[in-house]
Formats: sequence, structure tokens, C-alpha cells
Amino acid sequence: MRISRLSEQTGVPVATLKYYLREGLLHAGRTTSRTQADYDDTHVERVRLVRALTEVGGLSLATVARVLAVVEAPDPGRLDVMAAAQRSLLGPDLVEVPEPSGDVPASRARDWLGRRGWRVDPRDPVIDDLDRAWAACDDARVGLDEARLDAYADAAERVAAIDVGAVPDDPQAAVRQVVLGTVLVDPVLSALRRLAQQHVAVSRHAG
Amino acid sequence: MRISRLSEQTGVPVATLKYYLREGLLHAGRTTSRTQADYDDTHVERVRLVRALTEVGGLSLATVARVLAVVEAPDPGRLDVMAAAQRSLLGPDLVEVPEPSGDVPASRARDWLGRRGWRVDPRDPVIDDLDRAWAACDDARVGLDEARLDAYADAAERVAAIDVGAVPDDPQAAVRQVVLGTVLVDPVLSALRRLAQQHVAVSRHAG
Repeated sequence: MRISRLSEQTGVPVATLKYYLREGLLHAGRTTSRTQADYDDTHVERVRLVRALTEVGGLSLATVARVLAVVEAPDPGRLDVMAAAQRSLLGPDLVEVPEPSGDVPASRARDWLGRRGWRVDPRDPVIDDLDRAWAACDDARVGLDEARLDAYADAAERVAAIDVGAVPDDPQAAVRQVVLGTVLVDPVLSALRRLAQQHVAVSRHAG
Repeated sequence: MRISRLSEQTGVPVATLKYYLREGLLHAGRTTSRTQADYDDTHVERVRLVRALTEVGGLSLATVARVLAVVEAPDPGRLDVMAAAQRSLLGPDLVEVPEPSGDVPASRARDWLGRRGWRVDPRDPVIDDLDRAWAACDDARVGLDEARLDAYADAAERVAAIDVGAVPDDPQAAVRQVVLGTVLVDPVLSALRRLAQQHVAVSRHAG
């Protein structure tokens, strides 16, 4: 199909499609003349994926490019597919795992993780995200103490068990599932939380 | 304290503080001269709250203004504080509950909610968010079928029970807790999910 038809099928303007092509977010079509190329279903699927990651997942185009690179060419030698895939979602300077010899900064989230007994890399930058988010809750006096965090962590373990159970054995398919599933299921969980809040509140009120 | 000291205490530039004052995000200080005003701890707390909502919660300043208006002057006559508070996070045209006589559009998320038996307003715009997020998962072939959504919903009910349990009886404090807790705990849950994924994956690999 021509680029105008690709635009119709995906709802993405031709100018944006050309931008994706220039930035390598979309693979080139088969050249049919000096000014035209032919696109197929793989292009439709890729454009929809880029839109899903940016519009629903809230990722920048730079992060989408990094995520797609990992999805397409994962290093099959990596033991911890989960952590490696997650890191592709972070900034470019955080994609590599820090050296094991690096100092581990002390933090409240790391202390809590130690007590919790979760087997995670203590240098993982996601722990810094948790520290920042926790501090923001304190600043707003949301009342997020350790007991409540532990209760949320119980629920997070259930979610993670579902996530990990959905990851296939094949390394490339696994990386794809982890990266896309992590980014795109977050908004699903966020909507479910809000709806469940209403359900629980109404049920308690009625009960 | 002077505005320069307020800037030091919060780490927010003076120019940004003046912008907050102009936009009504920050209440005026006590005027001490024609060009100076005095600020106190309530200003420090408010500035930190605005930063937490924008930087950690990811809200726009327009949404922050709407959220703060609800937090400060909730309508105590509203039965469903939870739903009303949630709506303040949506666009201005969605703040009001739709008319009960309005048509309910058919959608996959609404069908699923009907089977699930959650007591939510079928016209709630959060259901549209769920439809969009679910469709994005389909586009990316994440494999989110109804069984997996139900499993996530079980976990969401646990999270919601913790959320609702943390809501105080006083209506104004309740709205504050719902609005700020919903926005600011989302990033905490997101970080916990990623860490729990690693823990579950490593534990399964080791076990």
C-alpha cells in the first residue's frame, strides 16, 4: 500500500509517518519508484505499536526507539531478562547495569526492601523512583507508612506473578512481553484501581 | 520569610514561585511593604505539594489547580466522595457527573465490568480509559485476555481496600486523601510492580 493508505489505516498523518521513517521508528517500505514505496501489514502493526507506547504508555519517542531496539534485538545471553528489559525503559545512561563493585547509596526504600526480603539488585534505579515517590507522598501527607507500603507490596507481588506467568520461554518473545507488558499494562492497572476504589467505597457504604 | 527564603527552602526558583502566585496555585503572602510579602510554613507545604503533583504525579499545572480547588473546597453534600474526587483529575468538561438519563455507550470494558459485578457508574470516563488501554495492549499483542484482566482486577481490589481504608471520615480530609492518594500512590505502585517482577522472576529461576 502507499503511504497515504498507511495513514488512513492507522489514523496517523503522512507527515508523522515520514518523521517515524526518518527517525528509524518505522522500517522503510519496498521502493517501487523514485518517489514511492510500498508498505504492508508489518508497517501498520509497527505504527500502531509506536502510537500505543506514546499515547497510552506515555513514553517519549526517544524512549520508544530504545524500547523497540531491545524488543527487536535482545541479547539472548542475559540471565535476567526481566531486569534488562525494564532498564530499556529508563534513560540511556541507565540502560547498563551498574558495576557490582559500585557503592549502594543508603535510602529508606532500600532499608524497607531489605526487611521485605525481595530479591532485587540494590543498585536498581527503580528503587530511586520508589524513594522519590514515597517522599512525595510524605510531602503531601498522604499517610503512606511502612505498614501500608507492605500491604501495597503484597498486591504488587500478585500483579508480578501474573506478569511473570505471561512471559514466554523464548528470550526474544520474553523481552517483548516484559517491555510492552510493563509499559502498556500500567494504564490498565491505573484504571482498574480507580474503578475498584469506587466499587469498594460504594459496597462499604451500602453494606 | 521572604520569597528568596521560600525559594531556598523548596528548591523552586523565585520566578516559578511568582508564576504560582499569579496562577493562584500558591496563596498570597502577608504584605509587609509595597514590594515585599511574608511567607510561612503553609507556603512551603503548598509549594512542595504542587511540585509533588507535577513532578511525581505527572499532572499539568491546569490539573493541579483543579485538584487543589477540590481539595480545599469539596462539596460536603456529595454522597460519593470517591467518584467526585476522582473526577477532579479529569478534564474540566468531565468534572461533573453525567446525567443519569444519558446513553451509556457499549464497550468491551463495560461488558467486562458487568460480568465482574463491580458497582461503578457505567458512564464513568475512567471506563473509557480502560477501553483505550486494553485496545493498546491488543495492538501490541501483549496477550491481555479476560482471564488475565480478572486476575489483575483481584489485585486492584486489594489495593482499593487499602486506599479506601486510609480515607478519613471528615469529608474535606477524605477528598484530600482520595485525590492526593490516587495521584501520588500510582508511581509508588508502578515502582513496586517492577521490583516485584524482578523478585518473582529471580525467585522462580532460583527455585
